Amino acid sequence: MIVIFIMILERCPSGIPGFDELCEGGFIRDRTYLVSGVSGSGKTIFALQFLVNGAKEYNEPGIFIATEERPQSIREYASTFGWELEKLEDENMLAIVDATSTKIGLPSDEKYVDIRPFDTRSLLDQVISIQDEIGARRAVVDSTTSIGFMINDVPKFRIELLKISTTFEILGLTSIFTCEIVEGSQAISRFGVENFVTEGTVVLRFERSGNVRIRALEIVKMRGTKHSYKMHPFDITDNGIVVYSGEEVITGV
Amino acid sequence: MIVIFIMILERCPSGIPGFDELCEGGFIRDRTYLVSGVSGSGKTIFALQFLVNGAKEYNEPGIFIATEERPQSIREYASTFGWELEKLEDENMLAIVDATSTKIGLPSDEKYVDIRPFDTRSLLDQVISIQDEIGARRAVVDSTTSIGFMINDVPKFRIELLKISTTFEILGLTSIFTCEIVEGSQAISRFGVENFVTEGTVVLRFERSGNVRIRALEIVKMRGTKHSYKMHPFDITDNGIVVYSGEEVITGV
Amino acid sequence: MIVIFIMILERCPSGIPGFDELCEGGFIRDRTYLVSGVSGSGKTIFALQFLVNGAKEYNEPGIFIATEERPQSIREYASTFGWELEKLEDENMLAIVDATSTKIGLPSDEKYVDIRPFDTRSLLDQVISIQDEIGARRAVVDSTTSIGFMINDVPKFRIELLKISTTFEILGLTSIFTCEIVEGSQAISRFGVENFVTEGTVVLRFERSGNVRIRALEIVKMRGTKHSYKMHPFDITDNGIVVYSGEEVITGV
Amino acid sequence: MIVIFIMILERCPSGIPGFDELCEGGFIRDRTYLVSGVSGSGKTIFALQFLVNGAKEYNEPGIFIATEERPQSIREYASTFGWELEKLEDENMLAIVDATSTKIGLPSDEKYVDIRPFDTRSLLDQVISIQDEIGARRAVVDSTTSIGFMINDVPKFRIELLKISTTFEILGLTSIFTCEIVEGSQAISRFGVENFVTEGTVVLRFERSGNVRIRALEIVKMRGTKHSYKMHPFDITDNGIVVYSGEEVITGV
Amino acid sequence: MIVIFIMILERCPSGIPGFDELCEGGFIRDRTYLVSGVSGSGKTIFALQFLVNGAKEYNEPGIFIATEERPQSIREYASTFGWELEKLEDENMLAIVDATSTKIGLPSDEKYVDIRPFDTRSLLDQVISIQDEIGARRAVVDSTTSIGFMINDVPKFRIELLKISTTFEILGLTSIFTCEIVEGSQAISRFGVENFVTEGTVVLRFERSGNVRIRALEIVKMRGTKHSYKMHPFDITDNGIVVYSGEEVITGV
Amino acid sequence: MIVIFIMILERCPSGIPGFDELCEGGFIRDRTYLVSGVSGSGKTIFALQFLVNGAKEYNEPGIFIATEERPQSIREYASTFGWELEKLEDENMLAIVDATSTKIGLPSDEKYVDIRPFDTRSLLDQVISIQDEIGARRAVVDSTTSIGFMINDVPKFRIELLKISTTFEILGLTSIFTCEIVEGSQAISRFGVENFVTEGTVVLRFERSGNVRIRALEIVKMRGTKHSYKMHPFDITDNGIVVYSGEEVITGV
Ligand SMILES: Nc1ncnc2c1ncn2[C@@H]1O[C@H](COP(=O)(O)OP(=O)(O)O)[C@@H](O)[C@H]1O
Ligand SMILES: Nc1ncnc2c1ncn2[C@@H]1O[C@H](COP(=O)(O)OP(=O)(O)O)[C@@H](O)[C@H]1O
Ligand SMILES: Nc1ncnc2c1ncn2[C@@H]1O[C@H](COP(=O)(O)OP(=O)(O)O)[C@@H](O)[C@H]1O
Ligand SMILES: Nc1ncnc2c1ncn2[C@@H]1O[C@H](COP(=O)(O)OP(=O)(O)O)[C@@H](O)[C@H]1O
Ligand SMILES: Nc1ncnc2c1ncn2[C@@H]1O[C@H](COP(=O)(O)OP(=O)(O)O)[C@@H](O)[C@H]1O
Ligand SMILES: Nc1ncnc2c1ncn2[C@@H]1O[C@H](COP(=O)(O)OP(=O)(O)O)[C@@H](O)[C@H]1O
Ligand SMILES: [Mg+2]
Ligand SMILES: [Mg+2]
Ligand SMILES: [Mg+2]
Ligand SMILES: [Mg+2]
Ligand SMILES: [Mg+2]
Ligand SMILES: [Mg+2]
Repeated sequence: MIVIFIMILERCPSGIPGFDELCEGGFIRDRTYLVSGVSGSGKTIFALQFLVNGAKEYNEPGIFIATEERPQSIREYASTFGWELEKLEDENMLAIVDATSTKIGLPSDEKYVDIRPFDTRSLLDQVISIQDEIGARRAVVDSTTSIGFMINDVPKFRIELLKISTTFEILGLTSIFTCEIVEGSQAISRFGVENFVTEGTVVLRFERSGNVRIRALEIVKMRGTKHSYKMHPFDITDNGIVVYSGEEVITGV
Repeated sequence: MIVIFIMILERCPSGIPGFDELCEGGFIRDRTYLVSGVSGSGKTIFALQFLVNGAKEYNEPGIFIATEERPQSIREYASTFGWELEKLEDENMLAIVDATSTKIGLPSDEKYVDIRPFDTRSLLDQVISIQDEIGARRAVVDSTTSIGFMINDVPKFRIELLKISTTFEILGLTSIFTCEIVEGSQAISRFGVENFVTEGTVVLRFERSGNVRIRALEIVKMRGTKHSYKMHPFDITDNGIVVYSGEEVITGV
Repeated sequence: MIVIFIMILERCPSGIPGFDELCEGGFIRDRTYLVSGVSGSGKTIFALQFLVNGAKEYNEPGIFIATEERPQSIREYASTFGWELEKLEDENMLAIVDATSTKIGLPSDEKYVDIRPFDTRSLLDQVISIQDEIGARRAVVDSTTSIGFMINDVPKFRIELLKISTTFEILGLTSIFTCEIVEGSQAISRFGVENFVTEGTVVLRFERSGNVRIRALEIVKMRGTKHSYKMHPFDITDNGIVVYSGEEVITGV
Repeated sequence: MIVIFIMILERCPSGIPGFDELCEGGFIRDRTYLVSGVSGSGKTIFALQFLVNGAKEYNEPGIFIATEERPQSIREYASTFGWELEKLEDENMLAIVDATSTKIGLPSDEKYVDIRPFDTRSLLDQVISIQDEIGARRAVVDSTTSIGFMINDVPKFRIELLKISTTFEILGLTSIFTCEIVEGSQAISRFGVENFVTEGTVVLRFERSGNVRIRALEIVKMRGTKHSYKMHPFDITDNGIVVYSGEEVITGV
Repeated sequence: MIVIFIMILERCPSGIPGFDELCEGGFIRDRTYLVSGVSGSGKTIFALQFLVNGAKEYNEPGIFIATEERPQSIREYASTFGWELEKLEDENMLAIVDATSTKIGLPSDEKYVDIRPFDTRSLLDQVISIQDEIGARRAVVDSTTSIGFMINDVPKFRIELLKISTTFEILGLTSIFTCEIVEGSQAISRFGVENFVTEGTVVLRFERSGNVRIRALEIVKMRGTKHSYKMHPFDITDNGIVVYSGEEVITGV
Repeated sequence: MIVIFIMILERCPSGIPGFDELCEGGFIRDRTYLVSGVSGSGKTIFALQFLVNGAKEYNEPGIFIATEERPQSIREYASTFGWELEKLEDENMLAIVDATSTKIGLPSDEKYVDIRPFDTRSLLDQVISIQDEIGARRAVVDSTTSIGFMINDVPKFRIELLKISTTFEILGLTSIFTCEIVEGSQAISRFGVENFVTEGTVVLRFERSGNVRIRALEIVKMRGTKHSYKMHPFDITDNGIVVYSGEEVITGV
């Protein structure tokens, strides 16, 4: 008699309609994933939706580290999808770290503010103390690309991202790192190293097909997971992203 | 009973024929947008028209920061479209900041002159004091590309643009940053970072289709907005830009 | 009753057969234009013809700043088209500035010689003093590309060109800057900044179509001007350039 | 009578279904091979399977040098294929060197930890001492690309890899170096030098064919070996990689 | 009555069968021309043939500046075409300057040796003194590309080439500068500046058409000259280059 | 009566089946040739076969300078083709210079070892002393690419290669320099200068045609030689390379 021992890793569902069924139920718990795409491809919405769903549907608090825009913009932006971030923040289901304001010399009246200049150590300390407070299970860094520009040294950037992702893993956070790629490039990351520190990569395509742009999602890598190898169309609706997991992109997008 | 809470963000219409209907009525108030395109694609005209319409149709004063050419050239240029900038300036509906002359060692007899060399702090002080005077609601930086060359350090350039856009947002200015891209590149920005500090990107195409060039406008990104994903033809007429929002570009421009 | 105020800018015709009718009668007075093209595309001939026509047909003296070859070569070259530059020089209708000889350590017996190494200030002083003498209305810098190599610092190069073009504008000179682009590139300038300091760009194409090269002229940008968006074939004849404004390039040049 | 002397080199079978029959029975003993591919192409699985098969089927202990992720992640990952690394480690059939944790400033409770910063000498000392302990016959460095980023000097990187591969050869280790290449590039290595220090290169393709990605394996170089020149499809199954040596990739992947 | 004054510039025929008829009888006297092409395209043969024909058919002595190989190799090479350089050297119809040997630390027993390291001044002094001796009318620099690598600073390289070509012009030398371009590039020069110092450019193509390479010659630029705009096939025969001026390359070489 | 003097240069046949008939009987004596190709294209085999044939068929001793792998690997590798290098070494028909071991800090028990770090002078001294001993007529440097990485300065690399090739020429050695080019590039050399120091270039292609790779040999340049301009298929057999000189590659390899 042969006994096959296969460990089943626990999943952390994104709750994004259509996505989790492409990858055995979602991300693997406590791991970090890269969500890449050109400007406007939907990365920020994907990441927010992951946290909002976590809080509302799975009762898992989340942390949003904003390196590109001020928390107030994010709150307003989220509200256009009916996501009331302030409410979640009040309930200790969400914490937003302002890693933007002081970087550009502006004061911040946010609760969580990252000191300047960019310093991984201080950012992680902040996350650890937030953990004490809210016991988060999910995290987002939006975007790693800003961090890359702040660090401005590719090998060092790789190491710092690795520190962040490993610490998140140890803290029990399933996380998304967003990454903005350049229009027209085939690369799946900006600086060519972001995918080194992550367990998988989801690419959000927003490419021209003739006179119109089409949105499609592709799971390029996801360790420990039998995932779709196809590109699936998705929409950005009034309620956020909806992936059409049963459909395929027809044209040569 | 389910109550869906969706916040509707206030719009700032460009007043450019055909444009606002592509994006739920125009830009979002107090946000910054990138208008990209190759040389001659119509960026300066788009930006001027946004301010002139603001002043004349919506009674909103505007600020034009000229980093590429002297205000006098701009006034003459605008006059070819029947836009009398001096008149608007006299009425305190428009202020033009000369951020060119002193940069090249020439005296300026303009009212608003930016000191040399390029310094974000002093530029923003100037804008703040203009705000005191005219209470502007709209602003233009034409072009960020010149600033990029002046700063000559991409990560620093990103930070400086972020300072400018965030300050404009705080000052209550809806603004346009123009960005000149290189012919033949697929990128939507020159230095690869301009779109990081903006809420959306409008690309003005001016590409060869066989033996002729065709003008087309594409909204590549606009947060919080259901916008067209298509390329729409536009013309530069005697009265400025007219976008054919109902038409599509047929050929493979 | 609505009164539309449209300022009509004064034109400076090139006098090149077929060209002026493509752009409402020619260049705008006192502005600078870029004439770009690969090696051998006809830039020097275009620029010389602009000055010779200015002197002979419109009684406007001109200045030719030679950064690439010695004035004597230019005179001989012009003579192959029947243009007697010496005669024009004697009549004070043309001045040639030798900005080449001393740069390479050779003596110059020219009347106007630019000191070494390249220095914008001294070049402009020279132009100003020529202006005193001959009251020029047109000017040519052939080529900016040599200056770019001499300066060897792109942001500085942009600033220096901006100084030159602005000074020329103030001096009442309508001018052409030539720019040599690299075969096979789609760019319209060599260093990516030349078009920033000019009011318009004319590209002279000399591209292979099958086994033969075809010459075509395209106005890529011309502010304040309703110009052709097409590529028009042209020839280099015994009398210089002739543009076939009524014809189009058929093949996919 | 002619006697032809042809030395037959000893083989080290990978045990990966379908692979060894493509190359006369597997790798040549005591040599180093490069396994290249984009992110998600299957390099880590290939390398693990090579070691697990070595231990379980051929009774050959192995060493896994982890430069990208912490051993614990690797153990969990392996378990998804039913490979119980801890068991092998307990039996002294496998040693995992943690060359990640201390690099990012984290403590490691692993048995074998590489000191920081990256130093070839210390890594090789560690390997030599492991050899004393377990008498390994196989080794894996996953990945060289991380080492390349740590060294950040291409010529030095080449020398260090050469040191490692030569030392492994002397220690009697047949080894695999993984190498992550960039999506869209045709190169078979990241820094253009990795293949210089290895006896052969296996490329794992994971390229889009229309709307879906297809996996294929290609032996690009294998010295002393008559190998397939074709691309063979492969799958990642619940038990790891299965190469379809009898099949060919049809489309123009 | 209109008198058209057109100066006819004196020609310097290459004597290469088929070439001179493509360009009104040959090069313009006392000017410098670039002969570009990939490795093996025939540049050295073209240049040698120009000098040999000059000496034998037009009684014009020539100077060959060898920056790439030692004069003895060139003599042997020339002999394969039946060109006895030593004989021409004995008759003072040819001088070969060894600008190679001392550069690599070898002694030279040549009559004319250029000191090390590369120094334009000393090279030109040498040429001037050769002029005194043999009264040369033609010169060759084979190749400028070696000089470019020796100088290793593009703007300086341009200036040095300009010094050489201008001095040659003053010395009454019609000259050829060879330039080796990289396979697969569309550029007509290696460092992008060689054509700046020359009066014209001849490109020798040696491109694959299916499974075979085809030789073709194209005059890309020749000032003051009505030249062919086509690509003409040519052969390298036992007597050197033969251009088929009446034929065209059919395929899309 | 016309007497045509054409010098016939002495040939050094490679002895590789099918090759010499493509180029008038082989290489020119005492000259250096570049053998380029991607990794795995057959360069090392070609070079070894040239030496082994020289020793066995033409009684010409040879020198193999190994910059990439240790002599012992080369001996084992050669043995897979039935070439017993040790035997040739014992008969003083072959000398292998170990220019690898000490570079990476390993001891070498080879007879000929090149000191560290890379130094052309010491390498050439070694070759000169080997010449005294065995009177070699052929030499191989496998590969120049490793030397290029060791020198890490392109202009210096060119000079050093020129020193080596010129010294070999003076020593009476016909030699092959191998050069590893990057997959997907059209260049015929790695650093763009290797072909400058050689008399000819042979490219070994190993390109994908659909799902399979095809081997083909092309003589891109061979001075003083009427050679094939075609690509000829070749195989790597149990006895080394066999070129099918009468066949052509059909597909668009
Ligand atoms: N409320 C909305 N309704 C519909 N589409 C929206 C809405 N908000 C944003 N979008 C779309 O999403 C895009 C921006 O998505 P986002 O996630 O912010 O992009 P990024 O990938 O740059 O982070 C916008 O350009 C727009 O096309
Ligand atoms: N008065 C006008 N009438 C028609 N077209 C014009 C007029 N002025 C400018 N244009 C067109 O607009 C182009 C320049 O637009 P502009 O906005 O200045 O370009 P940029 O994108 O470089 O800022 C010109 O090249 C021309 O084609
Ligand atoms: N006298 C002439 N007759 C006909 N064509 C000429 C004459 N002189 C020059 N040309 C053509 O013009 C080209 C050079 O034009 P030019 O303006 O000097 O080029 P560039 O763009 O490099 O400045 C030559 O290569 C040739 O094709
Ligand atoms: N347990 C599994 N079942 C099926 N496929 C898997 C499994 N684990 C990983 N994969 C596939 O393998 C890919 C990762 O392979 P891996 O060897 O880690 O890639 P890399 O080349 O980046 O090292 C995943 O993206 C997924 O497609
Ligand atoms: N004697 C010859 N007979 C026929 N062809 C030759 C002869 N000598 C050289 N060739 C051809 O000319 C090519 C080299 O020409 P060369 O002018 O030296 O090239 P390059 O452009 O590199 O200077 C050789 O590769 C060969 O194809
Ligand atoms: N004994 C052999 N039998 C058949 N093919 C072989 C043999 N040895 C090597 N090869 C082929 O030759 C290739 C390596 O050739 P080599 O000359 O070492 O390449 P390189 O161009 O990298 O020096 C191998 O990848 C393999 O395809
Ligand atoms: Mg975003
Ligand atoms: Mg503009
Ligand atoms: Mg010119
Ligand atoms: Mg991996
Ligand atoms: Mg040559
Ligand atoms: Mg080799």
